[in-house]
Amino acid sequence: MTTDAPALFTDLYELKMLEAYLQEGMTAEAVFTLFVRRLPPQRNYLLACGLEMVLDYLEDLRFDEADIAYLDSLGHFSTRCLEALRTLRFEGEVRAVPEGTPVFANEPILEVRAPLPQAQLVETFVMNQIHLQTLLASKAARVVTAAQGRVVVDFGARRMHGVDAALKAARAFHIAGVTSTSNVLAGRVYGLPVAGTMAHSYVQAHDDESEAFRAFANVFPDTTMLVDTYDTLDGVRRVIELSRELGERFRIAAVRLDSGDLAQLARESRALLDEAGLQRVQIFASGGLDEHVIADLVREAPIDAFGVGTSMGVSADKPDLDIVYKLAEYAGKGRLKLSADKPVLPGAKQVFRIVEGGRAVRDVIAGADEQLPGRPLLELVMRNGSTLPRPRVTLDAHRRYAQQELALLPDAIRSIEPAREPYPVEISAALAEHQRSLTARIEAAAASR
Amino acid sequence: MTTDAPALFTDLYELKMLEAYLQEGMTAEAVFTLFVRRLPPQRNYLLACGLEMVLDYLEDLRFDEADIAYLDSLGHFSTRCLEALRTLRFEGEVRAVPEGTPVFANEPILEVRAPLPQAQLVETFVMNQIHLQTLLASKAARVVTAAQGRVVVDFGARRMHGVDAALKAARAFHIAGVTSTSNVLAGRVYGLPVAGTMAHSYVQAHDDESEAFRAFANVFPDTTMLVDTYDTLDGVRRVIELSRELGERFRIAAVRLDSGDLAQLARESRALLDEAGLQRVQIFASGGLDEHVIADLVREAPIDAFGVGTSMGVSADKPDLDIVYKLAEYAGKGRLKLSADKPVLPGAKQVFRIVEGGRAVRDVIAGADEQLPGRPLLELVMRNGSTLPRPRVTLDAHRRYAQQELALLPDAIRSIEPAREPYPVEISAALAEHQRSLTARIEAAAASR
Repeated sequence: MTTDAPALFTDLYELKMLEAYLQEGMTAEAVFTLFVRRLPPQRNYLLACGLEMVLDYLEDLRFDEADIAYLDSLGHFSTRCLEALRTLRFEGEVRAVPEGTPVFANEPILEVRAPLPQAQLVETFVMNQIHLQTLLASKAARVVTAAQGRVVVDFGARRMHGVDAALKAARAFHIAGVTSTSNVLAGRVYGLPVAGTMAHSYVQAHDDESEAFRAFANVFPDTTMLVDTYDTLDGVRRVIELSRELGERFRIAAVRLDSGDLAQLARESRALLDEAGLQRVQIFASGGLDEHVIADLVREAPIDAFGVGTSMGVSADKPDLDIVYKLAEYAGKGRLKLSADKPVLPGAKQVFRIVEGGRAVRDVIAGADEQLPGRPLLELVMRNGSTLPRPRVTLDAHRRYAQQELALLPDAIRSIEPAREPYPVEISAALAEHQRSLTARIEAAAASR
Repeated sequence: MTTDAPALFTDLYELKMLEAYLQEGMTAEAVFTLFVRRLPPQRNYLLACGLEMVLDYLEDLRFDEADIAYLDSLGHFSTRCLEALRTLRFEGEVRAVPEGTPVFANEPILEVRAPLPQAQLVETFVMNQIHLQTLLASKAARVVTAAQGRVVVDFGARRMHGVDAALKAARAFHIAGVTSTSNVLAGRVYGLPVAGTMAHSYVQAHDDESEAFRAFANVFPDTTMLVDTYDTLDGVRRVIELSRELGERFRIAAVRLDSGDLAQLARESRALLDEAGLQRVQIFASGGLDEHVIADLVREAPIDAFGVGTSMGVSADKPDLDIVYKLAEYAGKGRLKLSADKPVLPGAKQVFRIVEGGRAVRDVIAGADEQLPGRPLLELVMRNGSTLPRPRVTLDAHRRYAQQELALLPDAIRSIEPAREPYPVEISAALAEHQRSLTARIEAAAASR
């Protein structure tokens, strides 16, 4: 299955560090924090997504004999290390925000607490999967916002980055509020609604557009007809002719416009259809759409549904997030890195979201053991390497939760336009003091050399 | 295995068209052409890549009983169609440019000739895989050009779009000339050189940077030391101290700089190392690199190797190509689509590359049966659904071929700066005439209605 997560999907340095940690006896507990350092200027918030894949991976993590033989062939690893990998199981704890939670810069999306070699080893896969789905859910939430309740169909499989991306994207899009996907495998794997009708090639393969429409309506009476293969408005006229020809048997649900000036063509198509008494035939638009184009079309044209492909599928305006997985604690001591301009908050953490009058007004990042006002966002989801029973495990529950949490955001933050002021995220007094004292200690140690 | 290509990885409309084609008896041969309509402004050429995955997919294409049961549950498909899918095998022909061939806008990368339902069905996967690897090989070729012979290591797995992308990327990068990858699974699956040493977390987990370096050198004597966890130049000084401590046993190969002003830090690190008699310790740079940053660093600083992550891994400046798979012929007749601004060249095609004085001077896109001067780029690689034996099937052979073909390109086209004039691509007189007459015929048919 394409959703497999082989243990070897890791960076070589994770394994080399594991070898060194074992030789040094450094197997005490570590805490790593996964977070996004900075939001892209085009994003006012992110929608956390992908946790389930991480939990499945951690539960199933095993090196098989072929993996061990391959690692042995590299010549980097001791017999003792290879033996440890052969029996390695993830035995740690995971705390995470639920899938569908809006998050901001520096807020932990997930924290792993486990013996250092294990916690380090899983970095690559954990980052890869949370990055992918958070990136794509965040983009899709903007598209859904722009569509203002209209249908949004995921058409992206053909230009997304590989099979895994296209599958996980359809899942993340569902959580973000997208209506359905064209991706049949995603439909099967995740139980998502699937959608799709015809391509230009179908019309072209027939000698005549009317003949193509007639034939397709015969097989799929309540389909959507793609009308722009030759001339969009002529295409609409042929659908109208078909309605006269079929009479009572005409059940075409929509026409799809896929090129040209979509707003103008939608208005003219609507007028032609209405004039012919086909008010119930909807207008479906596609072709190069993103949230900004959709917002304009919603304002200007009578469009009922949008098919969105590449722009959403690769998050084209920002195809990566500055996501990191950083050591925050080892052997009970907070850990920092002082590299220029890349601060890390030490220790295990919690995020409190303060809601006033039905709106989120600010978040506070605090130490994991602090009790502050507001809802704590991180929940314990895995202990001793086993996933804990949780509410909201179905995709539809994640989707409802995401909609509910998005509705709490200030309008300016939920907007697809850049917010003038970022959503307020504070650091608790105790956590700030921890960071200050630890920084001072490291700098003093360096200066005393 | 993550490289699986399930038959259900397709858009729903491909299957609905297949149902309609079967009911209409439209099973004559079709030709589809895969090409990129426009090069992005940031790319002077593309490097075609990913063909092997397509051939494996076409050879192995099977719907299993669970797939059929899922499709049945959707309620769209007739028993006859499901039965046809149960026994469906790809029986067609594929002509394609070899992996590692530089290609330009409108040039066929691949053509499929098969019974219409089959040729249509495979669209989604074929596009997805050629898009992914061509996109990433094209980006990587620019990075390799900028590095001017220096080592380039792929560090991208953590932020690439999923497991499939990270695996196939490492493969595409190898063809494009990247030296090695951090991705262990890619190393195993594709036999690629793997590389990597330590993360900041390794240094942080120790109470002292010197202690961390000493411990790691004890386990991996000829490693690269990451020196920027606290202060880069102090980190270099600690490596120098270690060299004095270890004497003859000191074998550290390089220091890695991952933050700050890399050019300045590289010059200062080089000076410190040289002064200490450590001329053979190399300087490795990473952290937010792309081809432009690397070109500047190569000019300004004594850097021996580059670790490149997200920018190359997601092709961040342009994460998608305007790639399409268009019907060009059905039942022996050329096919066109007239949608505004999206022309298609009809019929099966060939591309001839004309080389003069050791440099490619222009390409000519022609009909598949034309014999023109120059090297024909498309080769027959699959017949009756079976891959033909070919030369250059190893990845290293693809890599050598890519380097040889890239060396033929004009300097301005190979450059990472936008070329003032695009590489000349002409359309043969016969093909242009075919397109003209077919367009006229379709327009006349539309006007006569």
